[in-house]
Amino acid sequence: MDIEDRYFKNISSRERVIFEGAITMGALFHQFVGTPVNSESAETLEKSIKEAMELQPCIEEVEVKIDRKMLEEAKSKFNYVSLNGDMLDIRVVSKYDAKKAVLRMEYIEELKYPLMYVEYIED
Amino acid sequence: MDIEDRYFKNISSRERVIFEGAITMGALFHQFVGTPVNSESAETLEKSIKEAMELQPCIEEVEVKIDRKMLEEAKSKFNYVSLNGDMLDIRVVSKYDAKKAVLRMEYIEELKYPLMYVEYIED
Amino acid sequence: MDIEDRYFKNISSRERVIFEGAITMGALFHQFVGTPVNSESAETLEKSIKEAMELQPCIEEVEVKIDRKMLEEAKSKFNYVSLNGDMLDIRVVSKYDAKKAVLRMEYIEELKYPLMYVEYIED
Amino acid sequence: MDIEDRYFKNISSRERVIFEGAITMGALFHQFVGTPVNSESAETLEKSIKEAMELQPCIEEVEVKIDRKMLEEAKSKFNYVSLNGDMLDIRVVSKYDAKKAVLRMEYIEELKYPLMYVEYIED
Repeated sequence: MDIEDRYFKNISSRERVIFEGAITMGALFHQFVGTPVNSESAETLEKSIKEAMELQPCIEEVEVKIDRKMLEEAKSKFNYVSLNGDMLDIRVVSKYDAKKAVLRMEYIEELKYPLMYVEYIED
Repeated sequence: MDIEDRYFKNISSRERVIFEGAITMGALFHQFVGTPVNSESAETLEKSIKEAMELQPCIEEVEVKIDRKMLEEAKSKFNYVSLNGDMLDIRVVSKYDAKKAVLRMEYIEELKYPLMYVEYIED
Repeated sequence: MDIEDRYFKNISSRERVIFEGAITMGALFHQFVGTPVNSESAETLEKSIKEAMELQPCIEEVEVKIDRKMLEEAKSKFNYVSLNGDMLDIRVVSKYDAKKAVLRMEYIEELKYPLMYVEYIED
Repeated sequence: MDIEDRYFKNISSRERVIFEGAITMGALFHQFVGTPVNSESAETLEKSIKEAMELQPCIEEVEVKIDRKMLEEAKSKFNYVSLNGDMLDIRVVSKYDAKKAVLRMEYIEELKYPLMYVEYIED
């Protein structure tokens, strides 16, 4: 089966990189939020999220930063915390054909919301 | 803050509905895969997934079908199964401005993969 | 295969209800934390969590309360929030043989932690 | 607050290690099932699961093995798969006071179920 021809010919390459990048952004958030984490385990978790999400179609690179300061502040008496969206700064680079997009998720204090948006896209 | 102006003016309304629909598709899969389910609880779970995911920005409607036949076949000795992507048929309708998209996820046997794609989009 | 004889004869019935209740408590938290929720969808989500977790072995009843006041306070500009452990008050009733346990999870402000403990157990 | 005195004096040390180990077992399964994984990323994912779950109270050690043969067989056209319970072999060592337990999860073909049980516990 020609997947591209059958399922994706109704959208442009530019739209495709947005589509695939956005799937990965939503997936990442909902897969890993809730994971126990602290300053010692954060680096391994970042690496694991990166490697997992880079497996998805059209994903060229994923950068994950877990805010160490927030980890320290949110820390419970048991010395760790459940990962939440406020602590995450994510970049997902998707590529298809000659097109490339950089999607971003960052917590916006004013919105009380980890906003996902397209940071950069080729015309 | 004008969110639209600050974060989304680099993409068209058509791209925006693809973006928001795709986030919700990835989110849905990774939030709910693993949930214990059987024929008796499937309807409540479908309703709960629908209501949760319809909260996300620009999402007008979410339809969730869990394959009852697969639930029966996959059932363990304990009379339930962990929800997986093979059992899910999803439609996400996203809307922004005058544009609308219908995104679909369905398991494609030939690919051994629950494929997400744009089923319909307004020109 | 006699599962009981093969896998569980090294623990008492009292230990078994603690074991099965605790699995369900950990499972519930990590399956559903992150789910989009607001005051309108909370009731359906509570019901769905209850029905899903009552499927697990030896679980007789699950009660789920999502704190409506916290939902309102935590609400983002987009009118919903990601479910987190602070908002959850859970009771899991497990039963095996003639033994019964009630496990509880509630957020303890002093610990900054959603603590799980055995609220009641038959001698 | 003396947590031990307030919340845990109704169970024995032996029961406590079962309790804490079982929470971690349920948590692990429902946090990580669904994660994209293949042969290349499996080792990092195993390490990340281990480090995350070892943060939980009374958990001394967590061993995670993802079945490489199953990863290869289940692989989709896109060269990865969603982690599921069939692929996991887990040991959780919990310790409290002088007591220690080893909990195990392994997929039992005959039950079509990833069974969790107490593999070893000190008398």
